Amino acid sequence: MTQTAGRATLFFDRPPHIIGAAAIAGSKEGDGPLGHLLDCIEQDPRFGKNTWEEAESELQLRTARKAMEKSGMNEEQIRYLFAGDLLAQGIATSYGIMELQIPLFGLYGACSTCGEGLGLAAITVAGGYADCVMALTSSHFASAEKEFRFPLEYAGQRPLSTTWTVTGAGAFVLSAADSAPSRNAHVRIAGITTGKVVDYGVKDSMHMGAAMAPAAADTICQHLKDTGRQASDYDRIITGDLGSIGQTILKDLLADRGVRLGSSHEDCGMLIYDPKTQDTHAGGSGCGCAAVTLAAYILPMLARGDWKRVLFVPTGALLSKVSFNEGQSIPGIAHAVVLEEC
Amino acid sequence: MTQTAGRATLFFDRPPHIIGAAAIAGSKEGDGPLGHLLDCIEQDPRFGKNTWEEAESELQLRTARKAMEKSGMNEEQIRYLFAGDLLAQGIATSYGIMELQIPLFGLYGACSTCGEGLGLAAITVAGGYADCVMALTSSHFASAEKEFRFPLEYAGQRPLSTTWTVTGAGAFVLSAADSAPSRNAHVRIAGITTGKVVDYGVKDSMHMGAAMAPAAADTICQHLKDTGRQASDYDRIITGDLGSIGQTILKDLLADRGVRLGSSHEDCGMLIYDPKTQDTHAGGSGCGCAAVTLAAYILPMLARGDWKRVLFVPTGALLSKVSFNEGQSIPGIAHAVVLEEC
Repeated sequence: MTQTAGRATLFFDRPPHIIGAAAIAGSKEGDGPLGHLLDCIEQDPRFGKNTWEEAESELQLRTARKAMEKSGMNEEQIRYLFAGDLLAQGIATSYGIMELQIPLFGLYGACSTCGEGLGLAAITVAGGYADCVMALTSSHFASAEKEFRFPLEYAGQRPLSTTWTVTGAGAFVLSAADSAPSRNAHVRIAGITTGKVVDYGVKDSMHMGAAMAPAAADTICQHLKDTGRQASDYDRIITGDLGSIGQTILKDLLADRGVRLGSSHEDCGMLIYDPKTQDTHAGGSGCGCAAVTLAAYILPMLARGDWKRVLFVPTGALLSKVSFNEGQSIPGIAHAVVLEEC
Repeated sequence: MTQTAGRATLFFDRPPHIIGAAAIAGSKEGDGPLGHLLDCIEQDPRFGKNTWEEAESELQLRTARKAMEKSGMNEEQIRYLFAGDLLAQGIATSYGIMELQIPLFGLYGACSTCGEGLGLAAITVAGGYADCVMALTSSHFASAEKEFRFPLEYAGQRPLSTTWTVTGAGAFVLSAADSAPSRNAHVRIAGITTGKVVDYGVKDSMHMGAAMAPAAADTICQHLKDTGRQASDYDRIITGDLGSIGQTILKDLLADRGVRLGSSHEDCGMLIYDPKTQDTHAGGSGCGCAAVTLAAYILPMLARGDWKRVLFVPTGALLSKVSFNEGQSIPGIAHAVVLEEC
């Protein structure tokens, strides 16, 4: 049972509840404005492992376990896992969650993966196909630099338009609206707007905000059109990792379409690091950026009633080393999730 | 509404129908035993494009369009797309389906992606969240060799345990059981069993059948346990791309657990090429292997009533260049889909 509204948006008759969330991140994120809200801060960037990829896998595993602990659920009770990361062939996820032995739907949505995973998890729970599932995603600064850019040892100069990939993971346990664990939950997923691939021809992989802002604009406009809502119907519209330059582009693109975000807009990439004391240039990025900010900051704000309704819009840049080296542009995608206090 | 059975399996009260499917492949596949069943055979391995990656994107796009044409649906009517491929960051998919402008859930399940996509598509339709969706996946021999192995120009020798990555794509349009387009459909998705990551420690990337057979065995056993069924309840149990050596391993693993597949087992990797006349060693592989075989051979066999019920089990090897070079083992995953004549 569902109410559908337009082409890319759906609402749930029985919105799944988020009964537990966890955020674990590295020391740089720990030093940032959200540091005191994190579940754990790991000082060792290798998380006790030998490689950056194994470090990210360990980060995912610890975060999944923390979310289970906080929600009072165990591996046996989590019916499906919706998870992904930035690395080629999703290896941070495959190796990270292996020992949990939960049936896995592997995802790739670049930095929009948190929104994609929450959306599919919510569909599965709201449709009655699982009482309890988990959405999980991660990124790691060093594994991402290795995957997409240069070896850290090169000490390459970063242009001011770049963002800093967050070393962090977020995990979210969803439960059916009428289930016992949902009774104490404070946030529900009311609906989703699933993004399309949007390409404005940006080819600068050091300017991800510009590559992703058109996708964020497209998904936000689609959502407002599908629902007949206005930006002011949300306490906040929070994009994933556009960063400060990407935010300006997003606002310009939306203004061209008659949408004014005003002060209701925030961007996880601008929340996670302190621009004055932490040298990250345009802000933070990576799957972990939106996921950590959601778990550590956005959900608690909703749970406390400071906000009633948030449109959470993680944004992803769909490039690879190969596509970049072959001269392709960088398309973007953004998946929106309607989060409500309950 | 759903009936659940065990931990990884679910059945649909209103099983979605497959109202259209398409298979497009390259000339080697066209020369194989299923060649006469393909919708199109493309003689140009570059599909008119400049790179192997663009070729695979073009292959996906053409296959999606063909499935829409055969199902009588257009882009406006396909509410969501569930798609993925083997390449890093799923670029064959992102660039391939961009111009369709259908909201996308990007997937990564290696060669199990066809099963993963059909499962999520079926959940979305059966839950009432979409009337019509598409599952789509592809692989390309040359883009996969470049991604995982060596440049073709090296002309490297392949051990006899290797499989040949299929240049091919399969697309499947699903529609709600009670919708008008479903009335003429002949195959439905009755249920799914979602796989876990299974690692037996195989490290030989030239022996994918050995890496994936444990996952196939796990998912098949889980399915039979969850449902209380026996292998003989299926006309065929068809794995994705284990190849001839992987099939032997699968049968051994299942025999150890008291399950005998007998003559009911087939493997898409053993169906798509002729072992006598086509030098592919252990068989075919790649996302396209299972997807092409499903669209071209399995679905028509069900539609004609030659088979009543098939367990379709695409299998994936969750490695990357990086995980391989770092000495990691190759875990596997397999997602099962219960297909029934209707």
